[in-house]
Amino acid sequence: MDEFNFIKAIKPKYYKHSSVVKGIGDDGAIIQPNYSQQLVIATDTMVENIHFSLEYMSFEDVGYRVLAANLSDLAAMGSQPLYYIVNISSSNQVSNQELVRIMNGMKELADSYKMDLIGGDTTSSNQLVVTVTVFGQVDQNKKRLRSVAKPGDSVFVTGYLGESGYGFKLLQLGDYQHHNHFIKQHIRPRPRLDFVNTTATIDRICLNDVSDGLSSELNEIADASNVSMLINWEDIPVHPDMTYLEGFELEKLLLSTGEDFQLVGTCSQNDLKQIQINCQHAGIKVSKIGKVLDNNHDPTVYINKNGTKSRLDSQGYQHGKCKGD
Amino acid sequence: MDEFNFIKAIKPKYYKHSSVVKGIGDDGAIIQPNYSQQLVIATDTMVENIHFSLEYMSFEDVGYRVLAANLSDLAAMGSQPLYYIVNISSSNQVSNQELVRIMNGMKELADSYKMDLIGGDTTSSNQLVVTVTVFGQVDQNKKRLRSVAKPGDSVFVTGYLGESGYGFKLLQLGDYQHHNHFIKQHIRPRPRLDFVNTTATIDRICLNDVSDGLSSELNEIADASNVSMLINWEDIPVHPDMTYLEGFELEKLLLSTGEDFQLVGTCSQNDLKQIQINCQHAGIKVSKIGKVLDNNHDPTVYINKNGTKSRLDSQGYQHGKCKGD
Repeated sequence: MDEFNFIKAIKPKYYKHSSVVKGIGDDGAIIQPNYSQQLVIATDTMVENIHFSLEYMSFEDVGYRVLAANLSDLAAMGSQPLYYIVNISSSNQVSNQELVRIMNGMKELADSYKMDLIGGDTTSSNQLVVTVTVFGQVDQNKKRLRSVAKPGDSVFVTGYLGESGYGFKLLQLGDYQHHNHFIKQHIRPRPRLDFVNTTATIDRICLNDVSDGLSSELNEIADASNVSMLINWEDIPVHPDMTYLEGFELEKLLLSTGEDFQLVGTCSQNDLKQIQINCQHAGIKVSKIGKVLDNNHDPTVYINKNGTKSRLDSQGYQHGKCKGD
Repeated sequence: MDEFNFIKAIKPKYYKHSSVVKGIGDDGAIIQPNYSQQLVIATDTMVENIHFSLEYMSFEDVGYRVLAANLSDLAAMGSQPLYYIVNISSSNQVSNQELVRIMNGMKELADSYKMDLIGGDTTSSNQLVVTVTVFGQVDQNKKRLRSVAKPGDSVFVTGYLGESGYGFKLLQLGDYQHHNHFIKQHIRPRPRLDFVNTTATIDRICLNDVSDGLSSELNEIADASNVSMLINWEDIPVHPDMTYLEGFELEKLLLSTGEDFQLVGTCSQNDLKQIQINCQHAGIKVSKIGKVLDNNHDPTVYINKNGTKSRLDSQGYQHGKCKGD
């Protein structure tokens, strides 16, 4: 890999943010931080044949998806995207031109949020590994931590769950139609940064993205906030074209598959009403799926399904079903 | 790999910097930037059997070395280290305990600079790939860019060059004595952050680290600053125990092998005197190796060796020798 020509091909001609004092082209980037905001940093690594496959994704798709996963983290922190850096390890079988295509896929998404590429590194390896680190800014009073859920809160999710997993299933069945809604949700998911702006007036929102599956994210919130919650299976939003799926498969897609870049959170019942009004105007679906319980000893997530309440663990398994409880 | 237990094992109990608003344990870290300073960001990826080998390095050594390479970049920007994030991809053959050992090797070095681990990601892969991203702070008037060399400047380097490459040669010859000075310089190099503090009073220093080899770094400075320079081969500092090496081998080690985490830079002749006085007190060897020329059209690096002046390209090759020129 010719690093010199690669850098030349991807180096921005100018930086959109005046806070970039020095971008690509020295031993490090230099940023003049915005005094009135806090800086949010998130990072995600994706590996070929584990997180993506070039069998059904283009190099551009790979770049897009890794950055999208990172932006989903920024959304889950309630922050506005600013900059990104990219580390790519690849074998000799990947050409410089193909590396540039990965960067172009990222740039397409980054440009839509006015983000600046400010650094990175390229190395040789025997497998394609892409790490992206993103930087965002957040008002110190509007950061969305997973530790701020309170008893009495409503639990909500954005959009439909399980769409990315269902798209992956279609791909595995040999359906490579990239215009298919679910396949698009898997390959080119849109991070929910629209939710950040739309809910900027709300003081307290506890928030995670659903990248590791609803069960895992709810348990993280419960643990971090030291609360228990009760989720209603029937309230989890399912895309109409997925309702035909068998019970076990649907359960897996909605509760544990993950890679949906939707958001899950909690807030007061009054704030949820306001969020739903704001989001309806912005075309963002927000569904109440449960509540935070008053009892907060031993943080636990429960799920209510067909009148049966059971414990929902991080992996999506339901333990100790006790009918009518 | 059990990510939950890994994170539990490496998560800091407290953060040394009060600017860390939120460290590990949410979708991203949050930093409250220091208003009076600029933020420097650098990143480096190292891959097993390309940048390091577990045949002669421990897992702790691997962690130490990746962080050291990053800190060398912070030193080359004139900045003070603050935080770091770590992305590790590894196969199932690497145990959780071994991953923790990588992190412990980093922590040993990080602790000596009071750095905080604030985030990261772990994924599966078929090869060990470690990416570290570091954050530092710098006074806006004391950043050390490679673009600020001026005609008339002296060119200098810290320490001895070629030590890391020579250590690697010894390892290849089967000498695994980790207390050997050169092997230590290869496996556990000390980034030159001591130079940053020692030269903090100097206004302008053009600076790079020597990670890609002296020839490459000098050409980067020449290009970025749009200047030419003349280096004297005889002035390049060689460790006494390396002077026995054959001419060709020594040339390669001093000019192109790299991975030395020494610094190379330029400054005014007067400032170099002050730098040498300050550095002598601090036990840092600083050698003048050449000068920036007045002629700055077509930035070129020349080397003077045994009365013969030739052009030194990025790879360390010497072109168009013209005796007595």
